[in-house]
Amino acid sequence: MTQTGTIHGVGLGPGDPDLMSVRAHRLITNATHVAFFRKAGRKGQARQIVEDILPETVMEFPMEYPVTTEIPLSDPRYNEVLSQFYEQVTQHLMDLAQSGKDVVVLCEGDPFFYGSFMHLYARLRDVVPVKVVPAITGMSGAWTATETPITWGDDVLTVLMGTLPEATLSDYIKRTDALVIMKIGSNFAKVIEALKSGGRFDDAWIVQYATMSKQTVTKLSEMTDDVTPYFSIIVVHGQGRRP
Amino acid sequence: MTQTGTIHGVGLGPGDPDLMSVRAHRLITNATHVAFFRKAGRKGQARQIVEDILPETVMEFPMEYPVTTEIPLSDPRYNEVLSQFYEQVTQHLMDLAQSGKDVVVLCEGDPFFYGSFMHLYARLRDVVPVKVVPAITGMSGAWTATETPITWGDDVLTVLMGTLPEATLSDYIKRTDALVIMKIGSNFAKVIEALKSGGRFDDAWIVQYATMSKQTVTKLSEMTDDVTPYFSIIVVHGQGRRP
Repeated sequence: MTQTGTIHGVGLGPGDPDLMSVRAHRLITNATHVAFFRKAGRKGQARQIVEDILPETVMEFPMEYPVTTEIPLSDPRYNEVLSQFYEQVTQHLMDLAQSGKDVVVLCEGDPFFYGSFMHLYARLRDVVPVKVVPAITGMSGAWTATETPITWGDDVLTVLMGTLPEATLSDYIKRTDALVIMKIGSNFAKVIEALKSGGRFDDAWIVQYATMSKQTVTKLSEMTDDVTPYFSIIVVHGQGRRP
Repeated sequence: MTQTGTIHGVGLGPGDPDLMSVRAHRLITNATHVAFFRKAGRKGQARQIVEDILPETVMEFPMEYPVTTEIPLSDPRYNEVLSQFYEQVTQHLMDLAQSGKDVVVLCEGDPFFYGSFMHLYARLRDVVPVKVVPAITGMSGAWTATETPITWGDDVLTVLMGTLPEATLSDYIKRTDALVIMKIGSNFAKVIEALKSGGRFDDAWIVQYATMSKQTVTKLSEMTDDVTPYFSIIVVHGQGRRP
């Protein structure tokens, strides 16, 4: 009888391959099967990060999102289409594991922190062995890029998604010391307004492509571009106690 | 003329040496000088993590805290004593850098996330070259240990220090989806009360020594020990949108 393989959800960190963990590096350089999410027609950010270390003989399973921004979140079809997609790819990963293969699922950032892998994990965990390797979050990459510590003493840190309503964002922004905002993209104008009404716009930095070669770090109030890429994170530093 | 050396603030991650980054591992295995904080009379957690990979010939500079819990935070002497301590060790690190030595400062967790290194960084950054290597946070280690994702969809994550007043803790706890509480130690009883009044006690987990061999993961409501160690993190998972 074949021994069931393991599905490894492996966090790659913020983007620089040098910042993945020793364990992630070892799992990837020894992988026989890798899987990764990507938008149809793109190489995929996770796949890109491992470009130079993936074994030549590895079997690749790209998991192509059927939708990303084409259907609005509020449309019931959005959940339906995504759910079906997760079921399909989960089935493929289960088949691989049950035929004795170990599979490394490449995950941007930390797998359990707003990660797409969680949708597979929830479906796989009771069926086949699953192991998760944590990683440096995109936000750690971003605040390190600003060359300024994010939290001191007993600062409160709040992490917000740009997909939230403006009033909700503003309300949380008013009450926190340190702040991280992710999923900015098409929510950029709304996030700016929330930072202004929340009184933190002048303290905010935007980091694009943190830790990658095209990284930029800009004070939000000095930003001139109209377009914000998907890979951007807004950071407001805490100012807590410091002897 | 000697070229000035660089001070590297290197995050070691949550505790398992296998979870440090490839860059951190390389810097440490090639280090000629390392510095690390510790309580007098202890080996030091950061030093412990690198035990098996530190070169035999490395020069070690333990930076021993003059106080940790002996003087209350509210006492003005606390800041004074600590400030003097940071000045002294900063001076030593500057001397090393100015004599051409590179120094690796070993940091638990991520250096810019509530890290002691930040107090050195603030004093060094305008004087000698300083580079910071981000790392997997202790909280990522903790939520991964619970085998349950921390944040989904547009969940709000709030990170709180147990040193905050109970009413403040409770107020933030009521308003968040996902929650992390650190610096628990002697604040344990207060944190428990805040979780209860904030309505999240039954959903809370406590992770001790995350990713280390003595790791434990316990539902807070099922915890029987009276003593909480310093290396513990409380986690409440978000329950956001999931297709």
